[in-house]
Amino acid sequence: MKVGKNARVAFQGERGAFSEEAAVKLLGEEIVLVPQPTFEATFAAVGDGLADYILTPIENTLAGSVHRAFDLLVESGLSIIGEVVIPISMNLIAPPGAVFERIAVVESHPVALAQCERFFSAHPRLKRVAAEDTAGSVREVMHAGDPARAAIASRRAAEIYGGTILREHLEDDPQNYTRFLFLSTSTNGAAPANYLYLVFQTPHLPGALHQALEPFARRGINLMKIESRPVHGRPWEYRFYLDLQASSSEPAAIEAIAELEKRAVNLRILGSYLSAETSSGKTD
Amino acid sequence: MKVGKNARVAFQGERGAFSEEAAVKLLGEEIVLVPQPTFEATFAAVGDGLADYILTPIENTLAGSVHRAFDLLVESGLSIIGEVVIPISMNLIAPPGAVFERIAVVESHPVALAQCERFFSAHPRLKRVAAEDTAGSVREVMHAGDPARAAIASRRAAEIYGGTILREHLEDDPQNYTRFLFLSTSTNGAAPANYLYLVFQTPHLPGALHQALEPFARRGINLMKIESRPVHGRPWEYRFYLDLQASSSEPAAIEAIAELEKRAVNLRILGSYLSAETSSGKTD
Repeated sequence: MKVGKNARVAFQGERGAFSEEAAVKLLGEEIVLVPQPTFEATFAAVGDGLADYILTPIENTLAGSVHRAFDLLVESGLSIIGEVVIPISMNLIAPPGAVFERIAVVESHPVALAQCERFFSAHPRLKRVAAEDTAGSVREVMHAGDPARAAIASRRAAEIYGGTILREHLEDDPQNYTRFLFLSTSTNGAAPANYLYLVFQTPHLPGALHQALEPFARRGINLMKIESRPVHGRPWEYRFYLDLQASSSEPAAIEAIAELEKRAVNLRILGSYLSAETSSGKTD
Repeated sequence: MKVGKNARVAFQGERGAFSEEAAVKLLGEEIVLVPQPTFEATFAAVGDGLADYILTPIENTLAGSVHRAFDLLVESGLSIIGEVVIPISMNLIAPPGAVFERIAVVESHPVALAQCERFFSAHPRLKRVAAEDTAGSVREVMHAGDPARAAIASRRAAEIYGGTILREHLEDDPQNYTRFLFLSTSTNGAAPANYLYLVFQTPHLPGALHQALEPFARRGINLMKIESRPVHGRPWEYRFYLDLQASSSEPAAIEAIAELEKRAVNLRILGSYLSAETSSGKTD
């Protein structure tokens, strides 16, 4: 993916977060990284003039969808213009000079701790401590300089804060990937695309979702994923997200979207973009 | 819902967790509560002879589905026999004698902290500290006895650990409900039911999901929710969960399921049960 030199890219987390690793993989080291404390602040960063683009995680192969990102994507009005997938590998990181046998406390985000159950079962002496952020836990452990404290985070976080990696691949399941979406205020325009993201709501009628999918099924357009999310303030009502193998500029997709428009409410095209990663991953 | 006196009910969390509140709402105070440290331990509790039933959260109106519970429900082979919905109300809980003006640190699970953004914005002096559990954070704050520390958790957690509630309803969105499923080793049998939960996978073909929904749509069976979850070890493949307004003993549902069996793989009925709560919530 090409963006201008010094393009400012906002992401949720501290320096060294997995999102930063994804941003650099997609765009190279020349970009300006704009770390933000929350998803809300990240999505507001473009409107606030702090960033030109946003990179957000949307789905993990173990944990599933990142709910908050789906909601904010709709609320923000931003368009998806790209995608990147990275393997999530967990490292045990401690101050230089620390040795594994003397580590007593391990800190990280609860989701990261939960993805390393086997490691903790094998070493029951280790006390788990929850933190708000994986990379932030490395920063804190390095700041304290206590050789009995370690953090779980990305290799990049170890490099940034000068930590030593004592153990690699702590994750229980090696098939641990996260998919990130790259967002902009403008769409991809006529650029080549093979993915199409839509969101809509259906009326409360039997068969409503089935009818909504019909225009795509009839034209042989592959549905890669469907996600339903509760509508805030309306308990047990849902919004549907479709991830289709199509380009928004191809006639079959344009016709199908026009038909869907008559059967659904609040339809919006969230983006159309070129994905090399997930299409190759999905065909195996 | 009726269960035998002294029925043992496992749930994830410590005493005072929201799951405990839900168990007591569904079954009364006569049950034996079996708190478990993880979702894995909770789902293993019946097989391990520690509990007769399991109560697990499955969905929250703000956060969406509880992914781990979906996966373990399929892996466990247990059946859904009931359901309960409770409002999630966040309370600021401190040792007796503490006053709000002197609180400096607030501890809780990161999801609970995130649901109280407005409260933290209004009181920037409060330092947020992540914990592994809402009720556990109350236990720790009470144990420390420091009048500058408070926790965010349920009213029941305050009662159990003897904490004082300094502020109520800290949650940003009052429409915050969690739906719990009640699980057993045996099905509901011929008991009245109006909900049906299914899980299946589809072949990798355009229109596969559309065709899977067709037998239900044609018979006017309402689809209340659809959820897709990644299949572990097979990145970007999905399993679909359908939540249908039907009973597994009614002819239309039996026919539709038989048709689905020919179009899908790994089809399983997860349960059929009577729901007063969500049906009334969904019709408004």
